[in-house]
Amino acid sequence: MTTQRHALSVTRAENFAAWYQAIVGEADLAEESGVRGCMIIRPWGYGIWQRMQELFDRRFRETGHENCYFPLFIPLSYIAKEAEHVEGFAKEMAVVTHHRLKTIDGVLQPDPEARLEEPLVVRPTSETVIGAAFQRWIRSHRDLPLLLNQWANVVRWEMRPRAFLRTVEFLWQEGHTAHATSEEALEETRRMLEVYRSVVEGPLAMPVVAGEKPPHERFPGAENTFSIEAMMQDRKALQAGTAHYLGTNFSRAQNIRFQTERGDLALAYTTSWGVSTRLVGGVVMTHGDDDGLRLPPIIAPRQIVLVPILRDRPEDGSVLEYCDTLARELGATVAFGEPVRALADRKTGRSVDKRWGWLKRGVPIVCEIGARDVSSGSVTFIRRDRARKGDKIEFATLPRAEFVRVASGLLAEIQTALYAEAHARLEANIRKDFASFADLEAYYGGSGGPPESAKDGAAAVADDSASEETFRGWALVPWSRPEGVALEAFEKRLKSLKLTVRVAPLEQRPLAGHQCLFSDAPAKEWVLLGRAY
Amino acid sequence: MTTQRHALSVTRAENFAAWYQAIVGEADLAEESGVRGCMIIRPWGYGIWQRMQELFDRRFRETGHENCYFPLFIPLSYIAKEAEHVEGFAKEMAVVTHHRLKTIDGVLQPDPEARLEEPLVVRPTSETVIGAAFQRWIRSHRDLPLLLNQWANVVRWEMRPRAFLRTVEFLWQEGHTAHATSEEALEETRRMLEVYRSVVEGPLAMPVVAGEKPPHERFPGAENTFSIEAMMQDRKALQAGTAHYLGTNFSRAQNIRFQTERGDLALAYTTSWGVSTRLVGGVVMTHGDDDGLRLPPIIAPRQIVLVPILRDRPEDGSVLEYCDTLARELGATVAFGEPVRALADRKTGRSVDKRWGWLKRGVPIVCEIGARDVSSGSVTFIRRDRARKGDKIEFATLPRAEFVRVASGLLAEIQTALYAEAHARLEANIRKDFASFADLEAYYGGSGGPPESAKDGAAAVADDSASEETFRGWALVPWSRPEGVALEAFEKRLKSLKLTVRVAPLEQRPLAGHQCLFSDAPAKEWVLLGRAY
Repeated sequence: MTTQRHALSVTRAENFAAWYQAIVGEADLAEESGVRGCMIIRPWGYGIWQRMQELFDRRFRETGHENCYFPLFIPLSYIAKEAEHVEGFAKEMAVVTHHRLKTIDGVLQPDPEARLEEPLVVRPTSETVIGAAFQRWIRSHRDLPLLLNQWANVVRWEMRPRAFLRTVEFLWQEGHTAHATSEEALEETRRMLEVYRSVVEGPLAMPVVAGEKPPHERFPGAENTFSIEAMMQDRKALQAGTAHYLGTNFSRAQNIRFQTERGDLALAYTTSWGVSTRLVGGVVMTHGDDDGLRLPPIIAPRQIVLVPILRDRPEDGSVLEYCDTLARELGATVAFGEPVRALADRKTGRSVDKRWGWLKRGVPIVCEIGARDVSSGSVTFIRRDRARKGDKIEFATLPRAEFVRVASGLLAEIQTALYAEAHARLEANIRKDFASFADLEAYYGGSGGPPESAKDGAAAVADDSASEETFRGWALVPWSRPEGVALEAFEKRLKSLKLTVRVAPLEQRPLAGHQCLFSDAPAKEWVLLGRAY
Repeated sequence: MTTQRHALSVTRAENFAAWYQAIVGEADLAEESGVRGCMIIRPWGYGIWQRMQELFDRRFRETGHENCYFPLFIPLSYIAKEAEHVEGFAKEMAVVTHHRLKTIDGVLQPDPEARLEEPLVVRPTSETVIGAAFQRWIRSHRDLPLLLNQWANVVRWEMRPRAFLRTVEFLWQEGHTAHATSEEALEETRRMLEVYRSVVEGPLAMPVVAGEKPPHERFPGAENTFSIEAMMQDRKALQAGTAHYLGTNFSRAQNIRFQTERGDLALAYTTSWGVSTRLVGGVVMTHGDDDGLRLPPIIAPRQIVLVPILRDRPEDGSVLEYCDTLARELGATVAFGEPVRALADRKTGRSVDKRWGWLKRGVPIVCEIGARDVSSGSVTFIRRDRARKGDKIEFATLPRAEFVRVASGLLAEIQTALYAEAHARLEANIRKDFASFADLEAYYGGSGGPPESAKDGAAAVADDSASEETFRGWALVPWSRPEGVALEAFEKRLKSLKLTVRVAPLEQRPLAGHQCLFSDAPAKEWVLLGRAY
């Protein structure tokens, strides 16, 4: 039995940002590619993403959406048109200017004679190019609603890239829909937000707060932006999915009109919504511990891994045989409506290293099978969600037939346990009792640790910038839903505390005469304040 | 009963190239995007591609490959290194030179201050960037074989783009593997070629000839290139998938070395292999007829579509109800190991238009359900593989319960029938009896139509360039497997007949003393000659 303190080179408490990078590397999720800001998603990381894709894709189809594919390149003129219409339009994009390389004076370079007449932008998102197609496809109210989605790579020239959370290239899906009425478009926006919430809280076991962004946090060009916000173990917020109601802003710019039932022409109402590989980073920061990743079984590429303990002795053959047949038996059982994904790890290498490798990768159940298990017909295993008792690894042993019988139940328990743990942390780290802005200032401006009420036994963690102190969690405060200059003033005061408004939660508490935290006005809603990735 | 001649605006016999474009448009597969050489893949076309992806992906996993994802961008220095090593290296690539847009004098343009120090190339294929990772990942013989695949978009600056067949951006998978020995790498190359053959001949119902390319047709840098070649209805060849044995050419350039079991350092042997959205074009040109696409049921996004015939009368409700329940019943049956994909088309519109829409899209079984079917409890349907009897649409009617019972069997019959038809055409259009080059010249140099032996009842079709005459099919001829100057001479003679060597088929006929068609030398193998897309 190992007594090592923890499997990763750095703990959450020591340096949360370094711990995150350690998991990304040691759990074989991703690595630097040598191309600025772009990562290589390794098979284990990609396997998690592919599981997420399957789960979302199924839900998109169930809600009537069809997949399609639009070009990677967007002509500069499309972008220029959008820039005219959209305030807050971002300009950090990769621009293609040439279509050929040529060796000149011994140096391979863009061929000056192959300069494009019109530069092409690598899509940062596809509203413009999809809108142009909508304009052609939508003629009549009979063509509506138009419900499309694409799985694609997009590029945004991030200055401070970080694996999964913020990369120059990332993978995502972008839904784009058009509707005859404002009501239908808003309903679609909320429906897709709910799809995101249910997949992220269900299979990904990440509790979130779903809500609406304040005006200054909206997607440029959106009338309303909704998001789900997840709490990471450092108590910072991760925007885990967004859905935008675009009103007629994009359809006006792109002339997306349709003939109504009464025969007149009207602008279509559009929406867009997306989740990305950022969710993989969210799973790491929600469920990881100091031994590595812990994966919710529904999204684990392998749910049960069997590590044979081999000793270069004659009985090795029977140990391997035992593992192979056990993996097959497990694969014939069903968890979460699908065959259990079990693997007998036959690779060469020391079994203890292999065990730690799988624990670090977050496999929900890791079994170690030795000659003793074979002779007694039993299975020794570790539940990854509670791998340790004190400093020691906690092993359990069950008769083989019983293990096969209860395996899917164990996986369901692990799924539930990971959610419960994250949910308790979320609940314990939202303070709702600030009576004044001065209160808020004293709390977030101070340098002390988290208050008693926010201690939940989870790791107390350093911020990602070493200069920043520990972040104390979220605050739910009443405000008067300010706009314009008033909003800017509120925003500035929050900024001094390094806080932003995350969302106004869809599920509101009663206001019961509460006053706005920033002014003398009566409160109109509760908003969630936090620090975000 | 309709008596219209055909559903498409142009027939194969009139103009094969225009017919192809007509199907692409009228079957909702793809359309021009407004971005040079890039297409929009519409939901029906993307659905076919997604089915293909699933089928290939399953086979890749079964043969031990793992999916991952590498960057879209490749630094120019990687490309320069490859260019030094690889003869025949293509230079038509999209080059990113700037990372920001800026409005200068009122015009949005690449910001001169955001010029990249090193230009980035949009990947035309990923050997270089994946090889750089292999170099880091491979240390010991224990790390081998390394078996990876990625699904991705790639960009090649094609001068004459054509939907699916040759587009600037296309979707594909690229497998990349590394092995300890030449034998294992060659075995892998052939294994993946066989995976391609079996999926393309099976689910896609496209008969192919699998073989090896002659030296001048190899992928630049490959030791051996294998491909599967499919015959389109205009008798031209479509290279439908390729697998390359790269020897140590790439590993030498990229320093991919490993410690052998004996402890010395050795270069790894690598392979790469790919199929792309081009296959969608292949399915169109293999199975389409003058009424539109005909889809092999295994890859059809919808296998059975029910069109209700509505007459604005009270019985409409029962017709819709009948269609809905029938679709559910069909969905509960199994074809090819999966639930039948049935749809009740409830969209508004004339039923005859909807019927023709689904026939054009190639749905294997299209049902028309009217009040008479409801009252008699029957199903009236059209088998898309033999939609017509003479000029008329051929309807069949079965009692409802029987239709549900036999539906999966009908789908299997259609799958088989489409393959058989294409296979007969392939067999009938390979001439194997050329005794001399003069013979070949007389045949391909002449201006007559196809010979008796090549007539199989399929469309006699015009070539894609109006100036070219009808192409007469493939030739299987013996040759002496020339190299260097001799090969160039042979190639030139073939070019004068607008022919190229497609492959030396893996399944060879006996040589039996045959002489090389191009020289006095004894023949070493049979090679397939044809004209290709």
